[in-house]
Amino acid sequence: MKKWIPAAAGLVTGLMAATVFFADFSPGPTGEAAKDTANKSNAEKVYVPFGEKDDYYLFASGGHSGQMFIYGVPSMRHIRTVPVFSPDSATGYGFDTHSKEMMGGYTWGDLHHPAFSETDGDYDGKYMFATDVGNSRAAAMNLETFTVRDIINVPNTSGPHCAAFVTQNTEYMFLPTRFAVPIGSEYADLDDYSTKYRGVMSAVTFDQNKEKLNIAYQVALPPWSYDLSDAGKKMSADWAVMTTYNTEEATTNLEINASQADRDFIVLFNWKELEKMVADGQYDDVTGQKMIFPEKHKGGIYLVPVAKSPHGVDVTPDGTRFIASGKLAPAMTVFSFEKAFAAIEAQDFSGERNGIPIINYDSIVEREVNPENALGPLHTQFDDKGMAYTTMFITSEIVKWDPNTGETLDRVPVQYSPGHSVAAEGDTVAPDGKYLVALNKIAKDSYLSVGPSHPESMQLIDISGKMEVIQSAPVNPEPHYAQMIKADKIKTITVYPKDEKNPNATYEQDKTKIVRNGNKVDVYGIAMRSKFIFDSKAKRPDTIEVNEGDHVTIHLTNIDFDQDITHGFAINGYDLNIEVQPGQVNTVEFVADKAGTFPLYCTNFCSALHQEMTGYFLVKPKK
Amino acid sequence: MKKWIPAAAGLVTGLMAATVFFADFSPGPTGEAAKDTANKSNAEKVYVPFGEKDDYYLFASGGHSGQMFIYGVPSMRHIRTVPVFSPDSATGYGFDTHSKEMMGGYTWGDLHHPAFSETDGDYDGKYMFATDVGNSRAAAMNLETFTVRDIINVPNTSGPHCAAFVTQNTEYMFLPTRFAVPIGSEYADLDDYSTKYRGVMSAVTFDQNKEKLNIAYQVALPPWSYDLSDAGKKMSADWAVMTTYNTEEATTNLEINASQADRDFIVLFNWKELEKMVADGQYDDVTGQKMIFPEKHKGGIYLVPVAKSPHGVDVTPDGTRFIASGKLAPAMTVFSFEKAFAAIEAQDFSGERNGIPIINYDSIVEREVNPENALGPLHTQFDDKGMAYTTMFITSEIVKWDPNTGETLDRVPVQYSPGHSVAAEGDTVAPDGKYLVALNKIAKDSYLSVGPSHPESMQLIDISGKMEVIQSAPVNPEPHYAQMIKADKIKTITVYPKDEKNPNATYEQDKTKIVRNGNKVDVYGIAMRSKFIFDSKAKRPDTIEVNEGDHVTIHLTNIDFDQDITHGFAINGYDLNIEVQPGQVNTVEFVADKAGTFPLYCTNFCSALHQEMTGYFLVKPKK
Repeated sequence: MKKWIPAAAGLVTGLMAATVFFADFSPGPTGEAAKDTANKSNAEKVYVPFGEKDDYYLFASGGHSGQMFIYGVPSMRHIRTVPVFSPDSATGYGFDTHSKEMMGGYTWGDLHHPAFSETDGDYDGKYMFATDVGNSRAAAMNLETFTVRDIINVPNTSGPHCAAFVTQNTEYMFLPTRFAVPIGSEYADLDDYSTKYRGVMSAVTFDQNKEKLNIAYQVALPPWSYDLSDAGKKMSADWAVMTTYNTEEATTNLEINASQADRDFIVLFNWKELEKMVADGQYDDVTGQKMIFPEKHKGGIYLVPVAKSPHGVDVTPDGTRFIASGKLAPAMTVFSFEKAFAAIEAQDFSGERNGIPIINYDSIVEREVNPENALGPLHTQFDDKGMAYTTMFITSEIVKWDPNTGETLDRVPVQYSPGHSVAAEGDTVAPDGKYLVALNKIAKDSYLSVGPSHPESMQLIDISGKMEVIQSAPVNPEPHYAQMIKADKIKTITVYPKDEKNPNATYEQDKTKIVRNGNKVDVYGIAMRSKFIFDSKAKRPDTIEVNEGDHVTIHLTNIDFDQDITHGFAINGYDLNIEVQPGQVNTVEFVADKAGTFPLYCTNFCSALHQEMTGYFLVKPKK
Repeated sequence: MKKWIPAAAGLVTGLMAATVFFADFSPGPTGEAAKDTANKSNAEKVYVPFGEKDDYYLFASGGHSGQMFIYGVPSMRHIRTVPVFSPDSATGYGFDTHSKEMMGGYTWGDLHHPAFSETDGDYDGKYMFATDVGNSRAAAMNLETFTVRDIINVPNTSGPHCAAFVTQNTEYMFLPTRFAVPIGSEYADLDDYSTKYRGVMSAVTFDQNKEKLNIAYQVALPPWSYDLSDAGKKMSADWAVMTTYNTEEATTNLEINASQADRDFIVLFNWKELEKMVADGQYDDVTGQKMIFPEKHKGGIYLVPVAKSPHGVDVTPDGTRFIASGKLAPAMTVFSFEKAFAAIEAQDFSGERNGIPIINYDSIVEREVNPENALGPLHTQFDDKGMAYTTMFITSEIVKWDPNTGETLDRVPVQYSPGHSVAAEGDTVAPDGKYLVALNKIAKDSYLSVGPSHPESMQLIDISGKMEVIQSAPVNPEPHYAQMIKADKIKTITVYPKDEKNPNATYEQDKTKIVRNGNKVDVYGIAMRSKFIFDSKAKRPDTIEVNEGDHVTIHLTNIDFDQDITHGFAINGYDLNIEVQPGQVNTVEFVADKAGTFPLYCTNFCSALHQEMTGYFLVKPKK
């Protein structure tokens, strides 16, 4: 049983030739017959009539849209796009001073894995974290308001890819790098790749009181690519695991050169031990970061050999096992944490790479699971009974199997090429069962065509009995991973509470004012149904007049403390738009560099007289 | 019958106090009972099982998101967001040279009414047009590819609001201004509003061969706000109608001051006559535009008095009538085109405003329709039998009525505050009946909460029998108007055809090259599963090396001529991402202003080895 499973014959070659095999899809009875029989129950299962609500929120990464997509389950209705790494004029994100500053001058992001904050290994519904592969950032979203509160740059970690994943009390999220780069991203010849490039993993903390992210320390791993990762649970709570690929350290044509070795590795590390090393000063100060170099600072990090180019590694809900899936080897490999701890204790190593010990594979593997003709296992989720569900990218299906025995229990085709899947409460210590969503990379002909570039596709699978796809939902590019949380865990606020200490806030009409100081103009205004008031004492309280070249700062308070009464504020032709949610205070700053007459108006529909909620921004020309 | 309907008692006051009345919502049987009885059939009506497709495309304006939202009907699934006026990193829109140039330096737009191109008064499925209220632009989207092909700035028309609407063979779309500004947007004191400000309407043409928009002429109307508009059909095909508000010419606190007069106007104009006036030189050259001043160039434009502050005016499918809805007067007023033509012929005028004759109301009105307790009529759509469906913003309902008799036929509550509604093929000479979608401004508690700012809500109404809401779909901010087209009318392409004449295209690997000329570097590269090739003869064909400060232009051709194989191209940390759809050639241009090592990678999932589709962008530092 403890044998190496070679890549399926011809598989790598086949992939390089771009041949993707799809599982046969048998749609069953079609047309009217379908509506009368099999599909009727599915329609009912996913229908949420007005007056009822969905049972779960699905938070799906928006990939290179830079945003987070919020869906309801089981209806699979897209409820909201929350801007994270890319600007979004609909909400003024990237336009108002706070979000603009958070964006740090970047105009897009590639949002990969989202992760809920956890308490005792359970999603606590307070925060959602995400990473940006495009410009190497991390973000934290508050779930009372569904707004991003902090974004940080993550230096040295170039493309924090299959993160964020959090430890069971949100002590850390670990951001492994997708791309190896020289530390500090300095220029270095690719001929010096193995010596000068590094794959840096960042340990990031989040202060919930200050709502601030912080890089606690970094680890200079070998110059490999790091992929899906997971934190331990319960007995493995102090540990985390990450997959690797390109341990060949190839520098060109990775589709061939990074698929040569039969084995890549899982990185297994003890974050409590790393934390202690940092406390003990076992790190170097590099580019302003506390950097652990494993070849110098020994301990806490180990390698576990695994079948080639794994994509996924997932910890079982009970925390006793981690399961690796080799995308180029048709196997899920089940490892025992207990055996791993024993092997580490006994120094049962088969060698080392870059100063990191390699744990003896045979000592810690429990089984290799290879469902018949199932190719391209990528990612495993779990149900309430501890059963595993693995996406098969190449054969386009979900395979349900028993980690205790390796037995295949059920299979269902999905359309097409699932990357990840997500189960209800799937990454907690106690998944719910009931639902699994397959995040399919290819939609092909699933939906009405919208041109050469198709949507992605998410499919809802009822896993309460025999697996069945019960809904297909198109989705904007491009969900990578997602998490699904019970709806009642999230407690949003309806309006922003008054903050009398906020110097930018103006809650009373007669306190509105326009303050001029040299060429600096500060406006303290109010938005309310259905007018703007910038200076209640002025002849035209809804007009702002400045001189060409003035530096203008507009603070706007929405004094409608009512549910769902959001105002927008735009100046026509001045390329700016911000939002003030009920009770919110927001600021926009700009230079009045165009002379002339510019209408200003509310952009977010607010009342029957919304159309009348306008005024003028007048810019007197320079003489 | 021919009487003025005053605003409902206390209505204006009530609105200003921000009191919005909602129709009682009776959700009927709830919970399990509901699923077993009444709602079962609705679930089936909207469920589109895998293997089948939706019957209609719904194109909804994305408001201040600047984008267009594409939905399938009846499933009401969101299929795609197509970027129009705001950048979208998911598709590289605003990043590649073509879209960046089209965006004209603007970073957002406020996309209002969408309009399909028409042939013989029927949607022909070729193009979709839209306007930007935020930065005064117009755009044309090609429906073979669902991509925007042209955007133009529309000077003098500040906030082309309730456009685009097209004439029955897409000869013109007319863009009425929402905001009056001085011509050229020059600075002018608001005390001089009535003399120096103007409400300019723009007549825009679209050349389908060149895919270019053009402003044919403009009309300097009085300084009022112009709202919903419609083109004539059949017997009225040479005509168009637009509503107005703020004919009071108020310059502050419009919620009160623009609601004083009991009557505003419909602008009725003959575009064939205006076209002829332009051909005859009856215009002034102003700001580079051919501008008709009605006080100087007489004819072709008339005013029709209508109950105060109308929002909507809609031409019946048979082209014989236009129906105005007064948002502050609880009436739909039905006018006869035939009578209007007779009145114009007879010069049956009751006066003039700003040199434009006012047609005698009594001479052309057919009836005023005032359904009991229905308040806030905004917009009317039609079914296949010519019956009218009007949204009631204040009482949150759709009222079905007969334009021939004024009889109320049916009413259905919607949740909440519908602005517009859209019927299947609703703006054509032959609407389909079957479906109507209410575009509701307020969702309140309809969906899982996503914080203080709620989604909007679209509700699908089955109008084949007694009206019934059969599905509710949350939607991102913020649909204003939408159009719904039969799915089989849109013929998309699957891949971009080879264009051997395109000097930027590279279809063969051995023709890839990197050309240096001084500090200008041009890359002619290929994207294919699963690698980039920038120079096939180089040691590392997937690496681009330049010097700090170089001006870099990367042309990328996707040589995967296969359905749904889109590649992305990003350089980590360099804040850029473009997309190349199957067969497409695309270009990105930038200055390499940061020295160092920057991974480049495919951002759009493409194959099992997508993760390996990477390379490096190396920037040698200046010495």
